[in-house]
Amino acid sequence: MPLSFASRLDKVETSAIRELFKLLGKPGIISFAGGFPDAAMFDVQGLREASQQALAEQPGAALQYGATEGFDPLREELAAFMRAKGVAGVDAQGLIVTTGSQQALDLLGKTLVDPGDRVIVEGPTFLATIQCFRLYGADVVSAPIDGDGVQVDRLEQLVIEQRPKFIYLIPTFGNPSGALLSLERRRRVLELAVKHQVAVVEDDPYGDLYFGAAPPPSLLALSSEVPGSRELLAHCGSLSKVLSPGLRVGWLVAPPELLSRATMCKQFSDAHTSTFAQATAAQYLRSGRMPATLATVRQVYARRAAAMGAALQRELGDAISFTQPQGGLFFWARLTGAGGRLRDAGEFARRAVEQGVAFVPGAPFFATEPDQSSFRLSFATADEDKIEEGVRRLARALD
Amino acid sequence: MPLSFASRLDKVETSAIRELFKLLGKPGIISFAGGFPDAAMFDVQGLREASQQALAEQPGAALQYGATEGFDPLREELAAFMRAKGVAGVDAQGLIVTTGSQQALDLLGKTLVDPGDRVIVEGPTFLATIQCFRLYGADVVSAPIDGDGVQVDRLEQLVIEQRPKFIYLIPTFGNPSGALLSLERRRRVLELAVKHQVAVVEDDPYGDLYFGAAPPPSLLALSSEVPGSRELLAHCGSLSKVLSPGLRVGWLVAPPELLSRATMCKQFSDAHTSTFAQATAAQYLRSGRMPATLATVRQVYARRAAAMGAALQRELGDAISFTQPQGGLFFWARLTGAGGRLRDAGEFARRAVEQGVAFVPGAPFFATEPDQSSFRLSFATADEDKIEEGVRRLARALD
Repeated sequence: MPLSFASRLDKVETSAIRELFKLLGKPGIISFAGGFPDAAMFDVQGLREASQQALAEQPGAALQYGATEGFDPLREELAAFMRAKGVAGVDAQGLIVTTGSQQALDLLGKTLVDPGDRVIVEGPTFLATIQCFRLYGADVVSAPIDGDGVQVDRLEQLVIEQRPKFIYLIPTFGNPSGALLSLERRRRVLELAVKHQVAVVEDDPYGDLYFGAAPPPSLLALSSEVPGSRELLAHCGSLSKVLSPGLRVGWLVAPPELLSRATMCKQFSDAHTSTFAQATAAQYLRSGRMPATLATVRQVYARRAAAMGAALQRELGDAISFTQPQGGLFFWARLTGAGGRLRDAGEFARRAVEQGVAFVPGAPFFATEPDQSSFRLSFATADEDKIEEGVRRLARALD
Repeated sequence: MPLSFASRLDKVETSAIRELFKLLGKPGIISFAGGFPDAAMFDVQGLREASQQALAEQPGAALQYGATEGFDPLREELAAFMRAKGVAGVDAQGLIVTTGSQQALDLLGKTLVDPGDRVIVEGPTFLATIQCFRLYGADVVSAPIDGDGVQVDRLEQLVIEQRPKFIYLIPTFGNPSGALLSLERRRRVLELAVKHQVAVVEDDPYGDLYFGAAPPPSLLALSSEVPGSRELLAHCGSLSKVLSPGLRVGWLVAPPELLSRATMCKQFSDAHTSTFAQATAAQYLRSGRMPATLATVRQVYARRAAAMGAALQRELGDAISFTQPQGGLFFWARLTGAGGRLRDAGEFARRAVEQGVAFVPGAPFFATEPDQSSFRLSFATADEDKIEEGVRRLARALD
């Protein structure tokens, strides 16, 4: 084909993790590599009934074109879902439904980013966020994190230096870090947003997956306590991690002017999110099954996270360091090199596959200054026996 | 909000038709304004069964994350669907599933268009195509059409003058024109693509909605007869007009290099199209109900098109000119000004709403050189009695 492709594609690199994923087909491999929930926990019966009700009660609406903003009954249910989590002042008109929260990110990029604009993200952060914003020409810069999430002093310094278009954070059980931004830091993020008049995008797909006490309020919930912060805040929600990724139902809460422009962009991206999926999700939320579904996934993931943490301590000892996650789907760890053992997580990943266990090295999750000793382990899709065995294989790969 | 929005938004204007649509809530109004199929014809029972089978047979796959390229069983079914329409050499790997064909357009824009690139479209063409490409910075230029579709001599002249990134056509029952590109012109389009080494995007959501004989082969089908043309051709398909828009299932056929880049872009646009919707569509296509569904919609729309054509002739006479459509959902007409009557279709649309009938003026459908006398009438959603009454109201609005 004699076509030249758009120059925006030159900014994107996707091979790092794809290469590794090709190895996952190996028979008998135990995978800690994925970023997805366990399909065994999907409430298939509940979703079957919800989809049938949607087709029985409103077949026209469920199968016809719909408003770009989303199916109104779903917007009502999502607003109620947010309010039940302590977010004040969100109504159906204050959010739009997106085709997964990935599309919310895409719409924010399309709506906000001019080539050369800076965007600050956590280092590490969600890989597809980095690439998504880069496709719109953003220069993506990493702010360092620790076990309590993004380091706010360093973040503020970067804001002053870089004058970013916005800051993107996954404050609650982030991918890949698993970290939980402390309440104090949450307040400080909102305060620095107001002080420097910089927008903040909060991505929150994991906030409902807590194992013990509920996490601190989302930035969106907390914004009512920090005057001026709400009009600087966009919030991306998702049903993917708690109900079903296959529905592709996410949502975007944002100030009116941003929301209307994102809606305009969405009109030309996919017209609207599947009304069939939206009507199914609306019926599901209305059915009252969600609290029990959440309780189940929290319990199962909590047990798996506990099993993985204990096995990592026992089998790998001081060869790695990590913070035990309090929710979400991931352990984020570093090779310490203790006892002269491996420090390179890429090499560790290759050896691990030879031992029959897969995970993802951490370097690709950094927009800038990759940490080559870091790696991500997902405990979501392996049961406790598999987790124990997988960690033993990790230990063999390190020996 | 202190945010400045991306400069790409400055190129897009969406108010023209939105303003008119606000008037449609008026009680008792007959609408010829929409661009959507009649929900009364959706095969709700067939889709209910298909969705149940999808959840019964493959609940994990239907509800889990899926490949960005699409759900393989659906890709197989869509390839078979294309082959049954005479397209040689399309297999599952030769297409990706998109979130409606609108997303295929978005991905083509994202993959191909650099700011300042020219794209040639029909004048008039699908409004959301113009805006979609403009959001990626395209300068969109109109090539004139007549009752046989795009005028190929003028198109070739524009290709030489403008050196476009690609040509975008809806060759079969286009929106808004309803025009059918003749077989001879189809060949010439493919030949000029090869001669000038310019890519062609064929958008084909309406090709299955023919009223009498089947239309000439799609550009994609015909490309096997024009050496070198296939590798210059992208083809967008959709289930929206023939089965259900609410599923948001479209597809893109393109040469491998373009397809892989569009897939990469899709990964960061919405990860993948709803697997629930895809699995439902796959089951539906496999069920064998599609031929009967197509036969029904063809019959119903054929009757409505005939009724509208006869009523327009009878009630408006020489005040308008139009070509009777042989398929699709639309009449495209012009005010002639005969007998001193109105020539301005915008004014006509406003007067028509006062008389209780709505339609869309044609000017916004032109990327360049709008025809202010043109307008679009959809016959898809009104039954024959409503069509008769609506056309009588049009006549009153012209008097």
